[in-house]
Amino acid sequence: MSRPGLILKLSCLDQPGIVAKVATYVANHSGNLIEFAQFSNQLGGKFFARLEIETEHLDVEVEDFIAGFATLGRSLQANWHFRRLPYRMKTAVLVTKTEHCLNEILWRAELDELPIEITSIIGNRSNCRNIAEREKIPFHRIDMDGDHRERGFEKIRELLVAQEVELVVLARFMQILPDDFCKAFAGRIINIHHSFLPAFIGANPYKQAYERGVKLIGATCHYVTADLDAGPIIEQEVERVQHFHTPNDLVRLGRQCERIALAKGIRYHVHDRTIIDEHRAIVFPD
Amino acid sequence: MSRPGLILKLSCLDQPGIVAKVATYVANHSGNLIEFAQFSNQLGGKFFARLEIETEHLDVEVEDFIAGFATLGRSLQANWHFRRLPYRMKTAVLVTKTEHCLNEILWRAELDELPIEITSIIGNRSNCRNIAEREKIPFHRIDMDGDHRERGFEKIRELLVAQEVELVVLARFMQILPDDFCKAFAGRIINIHHSFLPAFIGANPYKQAYERGVKLIGATCHYVTADLDAGPIIEQEVERVQHFHTPNDLVRLGRQCERIALAKGIRYHVHDRTIIDEHRAIVFPD
Amino acid sequence: MSRPGLILKLSCLDQPGIVAKVATYVANHSGNLIEFAQFSNQLGGKFFARLEIETEHLDVEVEDFIAGFATLGRSLQANWHFRRLPYRMKTAVLVTKTEHCLNEILWRAELDELPIEITSIIGNRSNCRNIAEREKIPFHRIDMDGDHRERGFEKIRELLVAQEVELVVLARFMQILPDDFCKAFAGRIINIHHSFLPAFIGANPYKQAYERGVKLIGATCHYVTADLDAGPIIEQEVERVQHFHTPNDLVRLGRQCERIALAKGIRYHVHDRTIIDEHRAIVFPD
Amino acid sequence: MSRPGLILKLSCLDQPGIVAKVATYVANHSGNLIEFAQFSNQLGGKFFARLEIETEHLDVEVEDFIAGFATLGRSLQANWHFRRLPYRMKTAVLVTKTEHCLNEILWRAELDELPIEITSIIGNRSNCRNIAEREKIPFHRIDMDGDHRERGFEKIRELLVAQEVELVVLARFMQILPDDFCKAFAGRIINIHHSFLPAFIGANPYKQAYERGVKLIGATCHYVTADLDAGPIIEQEVERVQHFHTPNDLVRLGRQCERIALAKGIRYHVHDRTIIDEHRAIVFPD
Repeated sequence: MSRPGLILKLSCLDQPGIVAKVATYVANHSGNLIEFAQFSNQLGGKFFARLEIETEHLDVEVEDFIAGFATLGRSLQANWHFRRLPYRMKTAVLVTKTEHCLNEILWRAELDELPIEITSIIGNRSNCRNIAEREKIPFHRIDMDGDHRERGFEKIRELLVAQEVELVVLARFMQILPDDFCKAFAGRIINIHHSFLPAFIGANPYKQAYERGVKLIGATCHYVTADLDAGPIIEQEVERVQHFHTPNDLVRLGRQCERIALAKGIRYHVHDRTIIDEHRAIVFPD
Repeated sequence: MSRPGLILKLSCLDQPGIVAKVATYVANHSGNLIEFAQFSNQLGGKFFARLEIETEHLDVEVEDFIAGFATLGRSLQANWHFRRLPYRMKTAVLVTKTEHCLNEILWRAELDELPIEITSIIGNRSNCRNIAEREKIPFHRIDMDGDHRERGFEKIRELLVAQEVELVVLARFMQILPDDFCKAFAGRIINIHHSFLPAFIGANPYKQAYERGVKLIGATCHYVTADLDAGPIIEQEVERVQHFHTPNDLVRLGRQCERIALAKGIRYHVHDRTIIDEHRAIVFPD
Repeated sequence: MSRPGLILKLSCLDQPGIVAKVATYVANHSGNLIEFAQFSNQLGGKFFARLEIETEHLDVEVEDFIAGFATLGRSLQANWHFRRLPYRMKTAVLVTKTEHCLNEILWRAELDELPIEITSIIGNRSNCRNIAEREKIPFHRIDMDGDHRERGFEKIRELLVAQEVELVVLARFMQILPDDFCKAFAGRIINIHHSFLPAFIGANPYKQAYERGVKLIGATCHYVTADLDAGPIIEQEVERVQHFHTPNDLVRLGRQCERIALAKGIRYHVHDRTIIDEHRAIVFPD
Repeated sequence: MSRPGLILKLSCLDQPGIVAKVATYVANHSGNLIEFAQFSNQLGGKFFARLEIETEHLDVEVEDFIAGFATLGRSLQANWHFRRLPYRMKTAVLVTKTEHCLNEILWRAELDELPIEITSIIGNRSNCRNIAEREKIPFHRIDMDGDHRERGFEKIRELLVAQEVELVVLARFMQILPDDFCKAFAGRIINIHHSFLPAFIGANPYKQAYERGVKLIGATCHYVTADLDAGPIIEQEVERVQHFHTPNDLVRLGRQCERIALAKGIRYHVHDRTIIDEHRAIVFPD
């Protein structure tokens, strides 16, 4: 990922010869295909692909390579997207009180597991301010209680736009996003839900899990849509539990699921390994 | 489990000295405690225990040991149950079309992983008849379609009573049990549900799972209560899936979860390793 | 897999344009690419691919399509292999005493999870004869004790050749294969080792695992090479264990790992989802 | 764990009546038994137990309760140990360059998942100094290169003794401990090994794992003994890998296993949930 290159994501109706055409375009310009992940959905008649291309020996400028692809892309009636490597995705992290997910993100970013640049940490509580300050990342405390909710979301949108944020991570942000907010950032908001969705939708999933007496708890990383807890799932993790685990134990054990599922989900998104297909997410894992 | 012995299951309100009293009773009669699993539910104020006792050197007859315990049991206002080892639990298996769960039970019984005696295989279809015949186990085809449903369940009850069945296993039996049936055999009916409950309650869970785009599928082994798919959970298994898995693939991958969760659940029950506590099951695994 | 089609496996030195060339060949003859899995090994400089092609609308006969590929294949200096679908792979299962792996294979084959035709079950003990007879599969008891070992392996080879066996599965076959046997069937012998290789090579791995006090046990499905327990690994499974599990419990719990790892490994092989790369196996899972 | 109480760990030769005697001692002094975990090793003839006792209503002083147990303990010829709750275990963390395990410990301590007081972070490199300073924990850089090794370990011992350290955690400390050091702190040194022991003993296990082509990698948390990588195992974690993962990917994926296994292992130890039985560790998990 550190070498100059391109990631191409593409989806279109399935039709003969797509792989040949796309790969030939790359080869004709001396692009070196590092990875070609593809999925022909036999049920839905759609085609999805992710290509990773070394551009060092391209016979044209990278911009021209990208621009020239449009002819093929349009002929396939495809949606496509190029990303130039190396890059760091501008990311805002929204939090409330708990900090374990935020910490996990910061730390994976530092280890270079997540190529992101955290533009700001935004909280409707101040609990995570000291972490932000320690990491020298701007912290914005936005009041969202009661009447302030609507204005609060406006302020967040202004911040995200001003900072040209590409990805919004809800790292245990305990506020339901307004529909228009979800739509404005469609496909660019990732949430971690502290249950194994679609089980235990809504509040206090660990308490629900305790009362139901499940033997496995989980966490779900998903894209946020206006339909609460129903967005496309990117990653899920589970952990075995027993009868002696209290709801507090489930919170403790669940933290680990949340951290891992969220970190993996962000990584897949930032590396362009996800393609949203209506209610489902195609994920080409690494 | 093959040596002469006893399993004692006991539950009561938590109170000082239970372990001491129970263990002292065993020790005073020269019982050898092989295993003493215990759980004090701090949230509900209840106490649960399972003891495994070698009886070879008891200073009284086993019947007297069991009878004599009643004084202590009543003073603790406990529910308790003794089982003499070795034993085989009389078990009826109810099936419809699919046979993988039935096969798993048969194999595990043959390998002596499940100390059960299968009194009969009962099907509302004939698909599993040949398996029953191969294993020389009586097969009963009971018509349950349309108007025959009520009479069908009556026939099953008659069979179970006549054969002194202690455990009814629903091995992908695709009929909803009547309430009175559930009550009559409360705590003695085990079902395998082909989803990770409480997700995907109801029909066609694999199709539901595909449409929701989950990244893990599962199976749940639980006691059957009148409240459909809501009985106490004994065991759950999951398997990772990806976007390219069709509903048929989920059925294939799910079979494995079903087989394992059901086999473990039956084993725990038959070895008296479960205690039902309202909506939850205490499970002391082995 | 049930529609007429082809699987193409190919490996060669990595070089520009391979995907384009191969996919173009398919497209030029109106082949419909269902799946194109590819791996460019950046460390070893090698390229591996597996294609699944629907051939219904090919503009040439399938034989001509296969034959015509040779020009491209040779120009890439590739190794390649076509397989026509649907097919069933002729498979011999070698056993000794334990039958759980054999049973798993039989049953997955019956459920059509494994497209194999079992030509024979060969045992150096008679324990599995009754299973073979029940399934109406020829059983060959070959004496391999003491002096009979060498002659025994000769007989097995004769059987395999006579039956045109394509795959030999060692389903807990407790004999070490002679070097020349391994070489003669290189890449076509799959073994299940009852440990998490490379831990606990050699005899009695569950006893070794107990003594070492591991917290997870496992099983490994691998190709057999002359170097014992060191062949390319196809699949591994693990199961959590605790201090109270005896070596016998590990045997019991390990059976499940063995069954699953072996079944998955055979499936990957038979669906041509594996490519051996020296000591490692490329596996494109399904 | 936050209420005043006691943990009692006990091991002795198995003999009739141990549970009764120990539980009766507790009950006779109005101790409230929260948890009584017990293991009778049928193979080795030994008995192990861990009791958690609320002491609020004891009829004697806690010191007297502890002292009075000695009569029973000696009569059982047992090893036993009481710990008063709440407590924090004085812990030194030894590091070299990598910091993910150290970070995990710090976080979990902060979240109160690990009741430890970190007395110092000791490194033979300076990489982790800034983390220590951020957390306001003394950092000691000890030169251990070449001739300084012996003197380095002496200095560490002096530090540990001066700070009354009860637990030494090797958080990816890349030095082999001298035998006498291991003996001096026997049962009080916990290491995280970055492989699924006993596979890949020694240097560079991820590279070894890549070359062997395993399909699961792991990490092992164990007590340190003079016999390198052979101490009693407390916890193990695994993660699935595929052919496309490079050794660097394994390092990345393995970090997660290391963090989880180490955190769990420390938690079990600090909560007195482990008892060392020669080469094996009894672990009563929570």
